[in-house]
Amino acid sequence: MKFNHFSFFEKSFTEKLEELDKLGFSYSVFMEDKKILRDFLIVAPIDMTVLQATAELSVLDFLKSSQQLDWEIYWTIVLQLIGFTPHFEFNIEESVKFAQSVNLPMIDDELSSEALISALYLLLATRCKNGMLLVEHWVSEGLLPLDNDYHFFNDKTLATFDTSHLIRETLWVESSVDTASRGQYDLIKVQIIHPHYEGQLPAVLTASPYHLGINTIANDKQLHDMTGNLEKKGDQTLSVKSQLPQTPHYEKNQVEQADSSTYGFTHSWTYSLNDYFLARGFASIYVAGVGTRDSDGLQTSGDYQQIYSMTAVIDWLNGRTRAFTSRKKTHEIKADWATGKVAMTGKSYLGTMAYGAATTGIDGLEVILAEAGISSWYNYYRENGLVRSPGGFPGEDLDVLAQLTYSRDLDGADYLKSHTEHQVFINQMTTSIDRSTGNYNQYWEDRNYLPHTDKIKADVLMVHGLQDWNVTPEQAYNFWHALPNSVNKHAFLHRGSHIYMNNWFSIDFSEIINNYFTAKLLDKPLSLQLPPVILQDNKEEQTWESLDEWGGKSQFSLPLSQKPDLTSTFNNHYEKEQFDSYSKDFNVFKKDLFEGKANSSVIDIDITEDILVNGKIQLELKMKLNDDKGLLSAQLLDFGDKKRLADRAQVQDLKVIDRGRNFMLDDLTELPFVDSPYQVVSKGFTNLENRQSLLSTSIVPVNEWFTVNLSLQPTVYQLNKGDKLRLVLYSTDFEHTIRDNREVTYQIDYSESKIILSR
Amino acid sequence: MKFNHFSFFEKSFTEKLEELDKLGFSYSVFMEDKKILRDFLIVAPIDMTVLQATAELSVLDFLKSSQQLDWEIYWTIVLQLIGFTPHFEFNIEESVKFAQSVNLPMIDDELSSEALISALYLLLATRCKNGMLLVEHWVSEGLLPLDNDYHFFNDKTLATFDTSHLIRETLWVESSVDTASRGQYDLIKVQIIHPHYEGQLPAVLTASPYHLGINTIANDKQLHDMTGNLEKKGDQTLSVKSQLPQTPHYEKNQVEQADSSTYGFTHSWTYSLNDYFLARGFASIYVAGVGTRDSDGLQTSGDYQQIYSMTAVIDWLNGRTRAFTSRKKTHEIKADWATGKVAMTGKSYLGTMAYGAATTGIDGLEVILAEAGISSWYNYYRENGLVRSPGGFPGEDLDVLAQLTYSRDLDGADYLKSHTEHQVFINQMTTSIDRSTGNYNQYWEDRNYLPHTDKIKADVLMVHGLQDWNVTPEQAYNFWHALPNSVNKHAFLHRGSHIYMNNWFSIDFSEIINNYFTAKLLDKPLSLQLPPVILQDNKEEQTWESLDEWGGKSQFSLPLSQKPDLTSTFNNHYEKEQFDSYSKDFNVFKKDLFEGKANSSVIDIDITEDILVNGKIQLELKMKLNDDKGLLSAQLLDFGDKKRLADRAQVQDLKVIDRGRNFMLDDLTELPFVDSPYQVVSKGFTNLENRQSLLSTSIVPVNEWFTVNLSLQPTVYQLNKGDKLRLVLYSTDFEHTIRDNREVTYQIDYSESKIILSR
Repeated sequence: MKFNHFSFFEKSFTEKLEELDKLGFSYSVFMEDKKILRDFLIVAPIDMTVLQATAELSVLDFLKSSQQLDWEIYWTIVLQLIGFTPHFEFNIEESVKFAQSVNLPMIDDELSSEALISALYLLLATRCKNGMLLVEHWVSEGLLPLDNDYHFFNDKTLATFDTSHLIRETLWVESSVDTASRGQYDLIKVQIIHPHYEGQLPAVLTASPYHLGINTIANDKQLHDMTGNLEKKGDQTLSVKSQLPQTPHYEKNQVEQADSSTYGFTHSWTYSLNDYFLARGFASIYVAGVGTRDSDGLQTSGDYQQIYSMTAVIDWLNGRTRAFTSRKKTHEIKADWATGKVAMTGKSYLGTMAYGAATTGIDGLEVILAEAGISSWYNYYRENGLVRSPGGFPGEDLDVLAQLTYSRDLDGADYLKSHTEHQVFINQMTTSIDRSTGNYNQYWEDRNYLPHTDKIKADVLMVHGLQDWNVTPEQAYNFWHALPNSVNKHAFLHRGSHIYMNNWFSIDFSEIINNYFTAKLLDKPLSLQLPPVILQDNKEEQTWESLDEWGGKSQFSLPLSQKPDLTSTFNNHYEKEQFDSYSKDFNVFKKDLFEGKANSSVIDIDITEDILVNGKIQLELKMKLNDDKGLLSAQLLDFGDKKRLADRAQVQDLKVIDRGRNFMLDDLTELPFVDSPYQVVSKGFTNLENRQSLLSTSIVPVNEWFTVNLSLQPTVYQLNKGDKLRLVLYSTDFEHTIRDNREVTYQIDYSESKIILSR
Repeated sequence: MKFNHFSFFEKSFTEKLEELDKLGFSYSVFMEDKKILRDFLIVAPIDMTVLQATAELSVLDFLKSSQQLDWEIYWTIVLQLIGFTPHFEFNIEESVKFAQSVNLPMIDDELSSEALISALYLLLATRCKNGMLLVEHWVSEGLLPLDNDYHFFNDKTLATFDTSHLIRETLWVESSVDTASRGQYDLIKVQIIHPHYEGQLPAVLTASPYHLGINTIANDKQLHDMTGNLEKKGDQTLSVKSQLPQTPHYEKNQVEQADSSTYGFTHSWTYSLNDYFLARGFASIYVAGVGTRDSDGLQTSGDYQQIYSMTAVIDWLNGRTRAFTSRKKTHEIKADWATGKVAMTGKSYLGTMAYGAATTGIDGLEVILAEAGISSWYNYYRENGLVRSPGGFPGEDLDVLAQLTYSRDLDGADYLKSHTEHQVFINQMTTSIDRSTGNYNQYWEDRNYLPHTDKIKADVLMVHGLQDWNVTPEQAYNFWHALPNSVNKHAFLHRGSHIYMNNWFSIDFSEIINNYFTAKLLDKPLSLQLPPVILQDNKEEQTWESLDEWGGKSQFSLPLSQKPDLTSTFNNHYEKEQFDSYSKDFNVFKKDLFEGKANSSVIDIDITEDILVNGKIQLELKMKLNDDKGLLSAQLLDFGDKKRLADRAQVQDLKVIDRGRNFMLDDLTELPFVDSPYQVVSKGFTNLENRQSLLSTSIVPVNEWFTVNLSLQPTVYQLNKGDKLRLVLYSTDFEHTIRDNREVTYQIDYSESKIILSR
């Protein structure tokens, strides 16, 4: 077990006294140690009679005794306050040692009244075993009144807003787009939850096309067959231009103002991090955008029309567009409860919308927290001129996602009105995404946010799993590097797959975000000294480190063979039974592949010194095919039995994280550290006709040696002396690529090939 | 997908009209069909504009049209109301057919005003796709006001109590026991949650020794080593007597009455079924009993002193004992908010406490819902004179559980006071449970509730998983058969392991319990026509059946060999490496065992006709050993590849079941129906020295044939013609028994052996 604290900000002693006083802990340096401690325990919402102080004395007996307080006794007591059990989890005589062993923050000074007060201040800003800061745990236990007003500690807002009396409003915001060319702006349904408050509130906005329902049946019907033959492209040069959609200008007729909304709502999906902020005086807003249930329009899936249908909410919050109390547009309603300051949050498609919204440069959007977001949709469904399915979802594509999220079809009455029109639109999309060549084109360019990062004004917080093979790490890496220097940015790089990290034990993530949102949305100075990159260690459990940059400055290459003239050959073709078995379950294929049993060429590379690989990983390969088209797949493994972090969080304790005051209890989780035979470090795929560039193609020279440069997914990965990297080169990948079963022989000349790493 | 409804009770038409009227649906038979339908949709808390009525018309257009209502249109509309999506989940023109295919309850009559009203009444009592009755779903959406008063529909209480303003009280009840012989009655901490209500409330009580914390570290330290040699018992006759603990009589000094409690509580574990009742006007009470955190006494683990420390709460609710506002006993507090009527609920140890409490015959306990409870602790940790660990927990025993649940040790101050004394008590327990022989004795008899069932007055509802190898099915079966005829009883037998079934899609479990508790605790007639046994089918998914009795009246035997003189031999001993591998992970052993790769004798029995095996399964085996002691293990498998229900529920939809009004949202789950190679039907274990009886032992005659009668776990299991049973006979079981690695050869004479089944 190891604590990692990034959210603590050191204050002056006077500030500490003031902040403690506001919580009800009133001290001065003239007070005796034991009186300070006693008062602390009396004010705290705990039963102090159950606590032990020394091997012989309970806290009550100790306070009555003449024995002096020392750090050992201090830690014996406070370890119990943060949830540890004496005798079983730690030994009474070894409390300081135990606290150090689990990395609890500590005051080094000799014990004095001042040191003790500082230690108690620090303790309140320290995490409990249940995953909450002690101050937050105690507020949820009643330390502060539920007065619907802001309270702060160590520059974090506290849960003092009453979540048992929330205002829930549904309204329809007027977007700037008309996706179905109806001659009217698309109306977008918005769900708002906010606490009662005298003044104006900031808002946390989650734009989720899934929010109002998904159509899994339509999704499954739209799935593409992965079996087929790779198409030959020949010599082509492609060009695209960076452009934004034209928005129409329609007359806006004057309507009456409503004092309050007409429709509320009772049940809806909420995001636990938004719930956390809701209890702390930040409104929660959910919007699903064009083409979703109870909104207008087509499901344009990732383009700026969809983005604008989301940012319309921010425009409304800032008085720049209208919202109506119903779809009939008879009454307008103002956001007079809102300051207009907004943070966007969410994972996957939700994080994607946050990336996209930030690139519009919209005023009012102060910060985005994009978790596992997509920055360019081409890179989600394609790679280097090749159709490449996201990990775990062979056959998925943009049109499949459009079917999934066109939730207007879920309402029978709306189906009658709009299904046929949307189906025509989907068919056009199926053509436009061009699965036959896998080429980049204008349709994909219109769904690429990277060319528009120059307009970003919001601070950018990103979270990405380095084991996320669904939305791959390059999505974050490319956005990170596309940001202008003027933008404040921080990346949380964890070792999980496509998952949230806001309820993990080992890092005070929600609390960091609390400091950040508090500063940006409540006009406080941003005190937090957050490093640019907060990196989860891959060699140890529950360990997080600071890094200055994602992507090392220097590159170094490792030869793939020490011997001259080492060549290797593999074929693309499988016998029918094997092909069918791999097609049926790509996990069977993956296991065989990683164990060297599938069609592939495998090279093991011994690591002779400790290296932190940071950023891009590139292959330079000399190869030869007996055909004029082909694809290349590469996976790089950290190979050999050892303990590694699993890529999914495991529940450590059920419902112990309170997001407010008995509000939306969340499980405490962590990536388990387990025995594993190997782990994917990176992977990459390319159509060999795109071996020179994404925008130009040329046929593969049959039976001639040529060189391929292939960039694999960027990562940050610690390799130590004695580790072994395994590079697996092959063609058809049953999870990601077209299942092309032609007889093609690939030859690799390892003596003329290398791997280039950044550090 | 298949619906199964057991909670519906057919009412007279007049009653239906009245009940509908109380929900706001006011009809008469003189109203036109379409007006009835329109009014229904207007009153319902839904947006009727999104609904479709026919292939061409939305509901709004249909209501305006001259088209007549028919059942096809009715079902098209109501399928949408209960959560199905037209076009995708069902075809518009085939609504009736679809409703039939998923077993939705239906009115057979021709469409008329009366039939329509009856259909709508039935519809409200029908489950939605989200696992809630439509009426409950709509109440949670606001159909009724949150008025803190009782409302009923089809003899179920509805969620009209405000769970955002609950009263949470902690108090200490005076039990009748003094487990540590202090000369004072043990005070027991009780946590109570109840809604505001003008009158008096009934209570749902969960007695859980886990409730205030568990000590997993002490548990793990106490675990027993499974490796060892079986001890020879020789000729013994044991005797025990049925007895109850003497309770002391101490003076009770008069104290002041308090108007209200002094202590509340903010956070605690709650049981989702209790939460469901809390929103419906039933208090929730949690008690952990003697030897738990903040209570007095020793952890007596399963005896009647522990039971009495739980039932003390019922005594207090009925004014028969005192409760205090603090452990200082300065102020007494009365349960003037309570009617005194109580239902007990809970799974595993919690269900065990319910069984035990029922056998005290205490007044006020009207009904118990015991889920996977233990009826005799000997049968949990022993079997037929053999130490037999519960499935999944080798090395566990009663003293281990006592360490786990002696939560007083979790508070340092209490540890100082009582740890040493409790440790002495635990050491005595370790001796008393007698792992060396595995014999039944007085200590176990004192933890057997079966001899006391004659005192039961409460109705008994039991739930047990037929794949529960932790708390085995016999625990329920034996209680079932020990009940006097006067007791009303119902058993829910599901196909899961040691799990809850209150949030499954396929059965309206919570609603059945609602009918039952409403009748028993709110003094209503029990209208429900519930069969004695509600059985989950093992051949089909999502199918539940009614059965009159658990345990068939007739027995039939199958020979284990058609051939004369078929004998089989196996040895007990494993080579060290194999032994260590099986010891390290008993799942490796189980897989080998079931596939015939471990030391065992395997006989396959072809099933030649359809049989519902119901109740006991017995083996009569002729066998011979070359040693004078030994153990026999037997497992009976349904063998061969087919689809079977998995034994753990899988989430179908996250947080869609609302236990009140946006209160304690629960996941909808179901046992998945999956490909599997085999399934355990039953198993059994015996010390061969106990081959004649539990209470008398005799050595095994060396190298002589003898007969063993072994009862396996009772079950209910449908076998069809063509199925194959596999009987696996062996000695050491690495999950359940002592790991005795002696060289012993077992011989079975199959031609003189048989299996006896009940049906």
